Amino acid sequence: MLIDIALDAMGSDKSPEPELRGAILACRQLPVRVHLIGPQETLRRSLSSYLDGERLPIEIVHASEHIGMEEKAAHAVRAKKDSSMRVGLKLVRDKHVAGFFTAGNTGAAMASAKMVLGALPGVDRPALAIVVPTLSGTPSILLDVGANVDCKPQNLEQFAVMGELYARSVLKISRPRVGILSVGEEESKGNDLTRETYPLLKQLPINFIGNVEGRDIYNGNCDVIVCDGFVGNVALKTSEGLTRLVREMLKASLTTTVTAQVGALLSRKAFNAFKRRLDPSEYGGAPLLGVRGVCIIGHGSSNDRAIMNGIRVAAEFAQAGINESIAREFTQRPDPPLSGAFNLPIQ
Amino acid sequence: MLIDIALDAMGSDKSPEPELRGAILACRQLPVRVHLIGPQETLRRSLSSYLDGERLPIEIVHASEHIGMEEKAAHAVRAKKDSSMRVGLKLVRDKHVAGFFTAGNTGAAMASAKMVLGALPGVDRPALAIVVPTLSGTPSILLDVGANVDCKPQNLEQFAVMGELYARSVLKISRPRVGILSVGEEESKGNDLTRETYPLLKQLPINFIGNVEGRDIYNGNCDVIVCDGFVGNVALKTSEGLTRLVREMLKASLTTTVTAQVGALLSRKAFNAFKRRLDPSEYGGAPLLGVRGVCIIGHGSSNDRAIMNGIRVAAEFAQAGINESIAREFTQRPDPPLSGAFNLPIQ
Repeated sequence: MLIDIALDAMGSDKSPEPELRGAILACRQLPVRVHLIGPQETLRRSLSSYLDGERLPIEIVHASEHIGMEEKAAHAVRAKKDSSMRVGLKLVRDKHVAGFFTAGNTGAAMASAKMVLGALPGVDRPALAIVVPTLSGTPSILLDVGANVDCKPQNLEQFAVMGELYARSVLKISRPRVGILSVGEEESKGNDLTRETYPLLKQLPINFIGNVEGRDIYNGNCDVIVCDGFVGNVALKTSEGLTRLVREMLKASLTTTVTAQVGALLSRKAFNAFKRRLDPSEYGGAPLLGVRGVCIIGHGSSNDRAIMNGIRVAAEFAQAGINESIAREFTQRPDPPLSGAFNLPIQ
Repeated sequence: MLIDIALDAMGSDKSPEPELRGAILACRQLPVRVHLIGPQETLRRSLSSYLDGERLPIEIVHASEHIGMEEKAAHAVRAKKDSSMRVGLKLVRDKHVAGFFTAGNTGAAMASAKMVLGALPGVDRPALAIVVPTLSGTPSILLDVGANVDCKPQNLEQFAVMGELYARSVLKISRPRVGILSVGEEESKGNDLTRETYPLLKQLPINFIGNVEGRDIYNGNCDVIVCDGFVGNVALKTSEGLTRLVREMLKASLTTTVTAQVGALLSRKAFNAFKRRLDPSEYGGAPLLGVRGVCIIGHGSSNDRAIMNGIRVAAEFAQAGINESIAREFTQRPDPPLSGAFNLPIQ
């Protein structure tokens, strides 16, 4: 039984080549049927030349438009009614496919998903989560990284619940440690938002370990790190910038350490190996948690392998039934006890 | 004419060795007289063994207590009236020295400086700034990185003015580009704080380039990056965590790329070289801007060289007369025009 996944064929910076090749890789290795969304004729021609007679469960679904990386999300999503993103997400909404993956414009993908799929019952704000490598070898998950810039404590509380479920179901971490991203470990440390969020997480039935710091994103001390989308986005983009700086410095320092040519070769090899471990797209992109359906967003620079991983994660996400768990969590949760209820006289 | 700098001899993780050796390096290379603050007898013995007869302008000032790295700042600062930090900062306050450097507990150093020195006239909130390397080769400055977690737009406006002055005076950048750390370039992008800060910076007589993103901290596109202390601290600590992860991954990937032994050697050499460029302590620590005096705070892991750099930056900061410029900037600025003033009838 194959899992149907819709793939935005027009998302990545070099689309549709990485998407076509990634779909082929995925269909060869995974129990999936890929629905390629984009301009039918172009995709058909390219696909048959890539397949060269090989038979794979890949279908093409026509979409006449696509949203570019530089387009403003809000406007593009409204204006382009037949974009590959919207067409793909409608397939999710109408249950023709189990999940959707795009390596396109992140803002447009989030806006399209919220518009087409809507939020799960009980979820106030969907959150974009990224999975990052850590020193311990087990990845950690950071959310929100950009869907919501100004948050209330209740939003962070929901992010914690959704992130914890994702870590258990997809990352297979049995009792995920959940922390609030702050500027010190003590409960009193942080800003107004984190201090008000702390007591809310303390009373949840999760493994809450308190405040964590920026360095804990990468050291493996915490599995699920919650923050507002502004802070998460700054942490994510700072990491991207630093990774680029490190690569350049490493190249420079290796070429002076050994001979220039050997150094350049070594640094390229070494960096490629570790870049793969550092690259979020190796982990299959960022899941948008809290929408009615599966939507995974990859990096614009995704290559074949990253696209395949995105398809894999979309399939795993769908199979894990996380959305059903999230909906159950938020609709079955008891109302908070009335304060002082125990002091009422018993009739 | 020597510049007098007070040095907390009991600050760093391995104090007082790095401080003693750093003071010696500084006095050999720079036009400074170093006042070592700490337990007189211990320092005197160690210093004379390190000096081994060499005559350098180093004096010892007694302080019977010091604040440890793990101590809670607020409590330690109140309780330890004869701490090396407080004694050093009093020398600054009383104009016995031109500046103070410590590699100790950051929170305690900030609290002590605010208490002993006070804020410059017109400054609402002093800010801790860090200087980081960039792809372009010219360092950039990020502030605030931890002094103020919840900020108002007016605080960020003051950070911009102080950071710009520091970049011009100490980093020798002629027309520093100033940006707000946000999640997108457009004026409309960001959270409530950044959106309200934007118009304030736009009307300042500085080279304001608008919003920048996390990656711009390291790519050299912006010289002075302002944010609230919560966001800045997360960016700083995230960078520290990622640097550590990169070092471990690089080691692992180099040892599999070439032979284990050669790889380990290469990665150590290469990483040490680039770590020096990446390490904030190479840039002499973080200046606390906006207090009545010069206070530079270094990393706890500071070695001899980092201590020397801290002393150098304290001397440069004092010589540049930045505090005089900041005070002038904030006391001579005209009051904002009364709204509608031009509509008043002229008598």
